[in-house]
Amino acid sequence: MAGHRLLVIGAGPAGLEAARGAADLGREVLLVEATGELGGTPYAHYATLTPHLKGTQDAMQNMLDGVKSHPAVDIRYNTRVVASEGEAGNFRVTLESSDGGRCVETVGAVVVATGFQHFDPGRETQLYGYYEFDDVITLVDAEHMMKEGKIVRPSNGEPPKQVAFIQCVGSRDRQIGNRWCSKVCCGIASKQSIEIKRMLPDAKVFIFYIDMRMYGFWEDQLYWKAQEEHKVNYVRGIVTEILKKGDKLLMKGEDTTMGRPVEVLMDLIILSVGMEPSKGTLEMAQVFNLPREDHGFLATVGEPLDTVTTPVPGIFVAGAAAGPKDIEDSVSMGGAAAAKAVSFLNRLWKSSA
Amino acid sequence: MAGHRLLVIGAGPAGLEAARGAADLGREVLLVEATGELGGTPYAHYATLTPHLKGTQDAMQNMLDGVKSHPAVDIRYNTRVVASEGEAGNFRVTLESSDGGRCVETVGAVVVATGFQHFDPGRETQLYGYYEFDDVITLVDAEHMMKEGKIVRPSNGEPPKQVAFIQCVGSRDRQIGNRWCSKVCCGIASKQSIEIKRMLPDAKVFIFYIDMRMYGFWEDQLYWKAQEEHKVNYVRGIVTEILKKGDKLLMKGEDTTMGRPVEVLMDLIILSVGMEPSKGTLEMAQVFNLPREDHGFLATVGEPLDTVTTPVPGIFVAGAAAGPKDIEDSVSMGGAAAAKAVSFLNRLWKSSA
Repeated sequence: MAGHRLLVIGAGPAGLEAARGAADLGREVLLVEATGELGGTPYAHYATLTPHLKGTQDAMQNMLDGVKSHPAVDIRYNTRVVASEGEAGNFRVTLESSDGGRCVETVGAVVVATGFQHFDPGRETQLYGYYEFDDVITLVDAEHMMKEGKIVRPSNGEPPKQVAFIQCVGSRDRQIGNRWCSKVCCGIASKQSIEIKRMLPDAKVFIFYIDMRMYGFWEDQLYWKAQEEHKVNYVRGIVTEILKKGDKLLMKGEDTTMGRPVEVLMDLIILSVGMEPSKGTLEMAQVFNLPREDHGFLATVGEPLDTVTTPVPGIFVAGAAAGPKDIEDSVSMGGAAAAKAVSFLNRLWKSSA
Repeated sequence: MAGHRLLVIGAGPAGLEAARGAADLGREVLLVEATGELGGTPYAHYATLTPHLKGTQDAMQNMLDGVKSHPAVDIRYNTRVVASEGEAGNFRVTLESSDGGRCVETVGAVVVATGFQHFDPGRETQLYGYYEFDDVITLVDAEHMMKEGKIVRPSNGEPPKQVAFIQCVGSRDRQIGNRWCSKVCCGIASKQSIEIKRMLPDAKVFIFYIDMRMYGFWEDQLYWKAQEEHKVNYVRGIVTEILKKGDKLLMKGEDTTMGRPVEVLMDLIILSVGMEPSKGTLEMAQVFNLPREDHGFLATVGEPLDTVTTPVPGIFVAGAAAGPKDIEDSVSMGGAAAAKAVSFLNRLWKSSA
């Protein structure tokens, strides 16, 4: 019966792990993905993964294949969940595909894995000139270039000689309204700085930061490695302004360790943009009446001792829909959500049998 | 048949979640715990949990009760796993209880959740005088006092007027051999600083740190709160020496933001000791022939896309046995390990049927 099925929404690392996990545990899974591709944000936008710098597509291939080839997983690409009625054991969800087709499916439980979107640096921080200067880009723009095996100044296609990362763009910032730390940007910037030095050994690379949040093994896998093997310069400080000077960018700020103002010419500036709840995550909050926690992500009950159970019976969350998460967090939560959703369905149908 | 069972080793947050998760999915679970109590390190040593500051015993009670009362979980207290032979589907493990009794049990798969131990600050860092001065204590010693609802100077039982935390003791330290960041100590010190200010509003509390690693929501839940509501002083700097001066402690170091030396008298100094693989984790590496990764924790395959699968078929890991983890990580991994271990057992017994 259709109410025995699990609906997984979003096919990034968290959703893929939840879908595969539940299918391996014997449940039929309906996996709904808004784009035409599995893999989510890392697969679509990141050339390599943190912390090991392996190519994302190769690294994730097994995960994708495992879900694609699983007989118990029914994948719907280019599809969004637009409405839901009923309750656990009998959610009737309306799916809408990008060509406008609609259908209603019945499922017993749901894992929401709709993830995050990157902070848009144009919205508030006009300060950094993202929409003004071609050579101010984001981490994601840099990954897109790296996917093509290069890193150049967008203004003229030349390799940059001086590159700066600015951390915490749209994170740890009350003025912008994003009070949280986005957790992964220190790691990603460090990873990218290593990649830039590998491609352009003579370039000087700077990372301007408040705190380098390289927890766990990232400390030596990325942070020490960037400094010791690749001579990346970490500068604790604040960047206050970016101006155009000739064909370069003049970065003004303060080195808070040295206690002195900094004015340096850069060829390329990369903004380490943080995480916000994605459009899909906000939509799912509405569709399923899921409360959002203080920061706007989906609320869970019982944290830190339960990371995946929402206050709505039968609905679970995995990955960055619930807050800033790294890939490890997302896949662990995907597996945990699979376990909880499947035992929820097992209990439900046993008790009604 | 006994080979259908799952063995979970260690009953901290990761092991409890793995045991409960697998039992809820219909498997019989043998849960082996070296002490006489469930709950692991947080329950045994921490008065309150990060980040919400709720009492650990209350917060964890449901989790403990769920496992204790589960008909499919067979708990063995005061018991260690001392040997294993055979392989997936037919591990014959020797259990030894603290009274010396031995028995052999057959299980089909294993989740190792033997966790971490706190770095012992006496071993190398005699510098900080942990074994020399009564009023130099660790985070754990502070929690033990907080369990009794107080925070005092061990030397004289008086409440301290000046308290300092020193971060990264036994973490991020190549000389000591612990190159990793222990991930949770910034959060725990900030939590404790709030609790100290609640108990002793007139005390001055300082946290000396390299980087404040308050990822995700800890940023405003703990770090901003400590500063704004409780006037905790965060000092970026290095503490080089602690000396006895009268009945106080003279702390010498450098404030790297202000670029000047610091010499302050303290009544109580709390060392934020990091995580190391526990004795049990090292024992399980031997018993089950599990490879250890570069830092000495249990190795997993496929990270960051798989956090719980070890290279030995049928053996999974959850929580801080695999590296520095917070409680969220541990319970997510516990759930993920349950899902993977149960589907592993299901596949195994289906294919041999």
